[in-house]
Amino acid sequence: MATADPSPDDLTIDNLTSHVIKLSSNIENERLKFVFAKLIQYSHDFVRDTKLTTAEWEAAWQYLTAVGQDCTPDRQEMILLSDVLGISALVDAINNPTAPRATESSVLGPFHNHAHEFENGQSIASKGVIGEPMLIHGTVSDTQGKPLSGVAVDVWETNGNGFYDMQDPEKDGPDCRGIFHTDKDGKFALVGVRAVDYPIPHDGSVGVLLRLLNRSNVRPAHVHFVLQHPDCVRLTTALYSNDSVNVALDPVFGVKKSLIKQFTWSEDGEVAKKYSIDMLERADPGGKRTVGFWVLEHDFVLMRK
Amino acid sequence: MATADPSPDDLTIDNLTSHVIKLSSNIENERLKFVFAKLIQYSHDFVRDTKLTTAEWEAAWQYLTAVGQDCTPDRQEMILLSDVLGISALVDAINNPTAPRATESSVLGPFHNHAHEFENGQSIASKGVIGEPMLIHGTVSDTQGKPLSGVAVDVWETNGNGFYDMQDPEKDGPDCRGIFHTDKDGKFALVGVRAVDYPIPHDGSVGVLLRLLNRSNVRPAHVHFVLQHPDCVRLTTALYSNDSVNVALDPVFGVKKSLIKQFTWSEDGEVAKKYSIDMLERADPGGKRTVGFWVLEHDFVLMRK
Repeated sequence: MATADPSPDDLTIDNLTSHVIKLSSNIENERLKFVFAKLIQYSHDFVRDTKLTTAEWEAAWQYLTAVGQDCTPDRQEMILLSDVLGISALVDAINNPTAPRATESSVLGPFHNHAHEFENGQSIASKGVIGEPMLIHGTVSDTQGKPLSGVAVDVWETNGNGFYDMQDPEKDGPDCRGIFHTDKDGKFALVGVRAVDYPIPHDGSVGVLLRLLNRSNVRPAHVHFVLQHPDCVRLTTALYSNDSVNVALDPVFGVKKSLIKQFTWSEDGEVAKKYSIDMLERADPGGKRTVGFWVLEHDFVLMRK
Repeated sequence: MATADPSPDDLTIDNLTSHVIKLSSNIENERLKFVFAKLIQYSHDFVRDTKLTTAEWEAAWQYLTAVGQDCTPDRQEMILLSDVLGISALVDAINNPTAPRATESSVLGPFHNHAHEFENGQSIASKGVIGEPMLIHGTVSDTQGKPLSGVAVDVWETNGNGFYDMQDPEKDGPDCRGIFHTDKDGKFALVGVRAVDYPIPHDGSVGVLLRLLNRSNVRPAHVHFVLQHPDCVRLTTALYSNDSVNVALDPVFGVKKSLIKQFTWSEDGEVAKKYSIDMLERADPGGKRTVGFWVLEHDFVLMRK
């Protein structure tokens, strides 16, 4: 147990912080001691600097309690709070420095989940899923340009309504998520749906906060990826649509320029046939009828360990 | 809605904080804007300074989620977390500066609750309650020494086993708590039990933290008070026993020297009779048989508004 001065000075605004740190420092784990000392220092500095009122302190513990109570096995509101405060993006930036030429990381988000394994070329979208078909393909190589085979490519996205499977009351199993493996040339390919802009969950405490701060809750359209290979550093990232007006307002701060891609339109019937894509009929921006599908192509570069 | 640069620079460890603050600053309430800017700044500075790892970030949101989920109508674990980190004591110190001669404040704690009103001299302890009888009395005056009549004196304490009524599985109503009013001379008096050292709740997330930090969970014996008078600043405070070895190790940092009192022993049968105190037979420190009761006397001084 920590010992303390048998006749301590009164605890005041000025000496309380060092006292709490001292009382919390009688532990062997140096890293834990360091992190807790900093946590106490920064949280106290925040309270002192803002002269936090009693009413604000009450609002703070009531709010954090509500965030904790919003969490369920299918919903992690505390991650979402970390996301909208930019803490998740900062932790990501600190822990995932990117070597020149390597693909940059992005936030994991709260919707990663168990997925089935698929063969290259298969569709992750269930039959009749809402959304426009999109071929997602590319290669994975190392920073020397050498293709990497056997990379596990874990992909997940919303359906065309902006719901992840776990949010969709119509779904009780995985949909629009799957794990693929690159072939001997480092290539992977799958069929999904065209990613759309969607609001992060806003019926809970984080929604209250975003409304209070007059902030957007709409994420720009994106597809999530986690890439893993035994010889390489695991990469958590996402690719964002440059058609979205929300790339500069991302409420969770995941967008990086190198991750913004054009979703292109293809009318190639041979490719559609190869991947069993049901081609979509639509009017192009000029009003002309067109039949085709969307394509998201990206070549990922992993760092070797 | 906040607007943002249509072609922003990539968000990095260095510019993310200012971006998040800017995106969160499109609100009219200047105080809210200021507090959130500081919250973002200090929380990001903490993450940067510690180079918080992904595993530590995961532990943090999992921990805060657990604290939120520990909360029930009878238990407020988030306040307890604020208490053991010294945040509650700091907020108290900032918001309740004490004028010379006025009684100092102390932390409210998580166990204040609705109490019945009593007449002066009555007992707040139910018949057969565990604990040694203690007369609690004193006067309330202003800083000029003028006695204050009609001050509401809200008192609460544990029983002799260290349980507040809401923690005690044997109790389903208020016990060892009550509201009194000072008479025309500013005097109040009540009968309770001798306060004992007790552990703060340690079967939840805060208990996990205190064990991790190798810290004591035992509060020194004390009696809580909230004093209210229409002309005066509300006072939340507590009186601590100088017999307790735990005054210097208080896990919630509530003790101040001016609030440490001697619980004295009285053998005065006339006083016992006046307050219907069942006198207690015990051996004094010298081993001699004695019959009497404990006394906690304190003269409170309120600041006029």
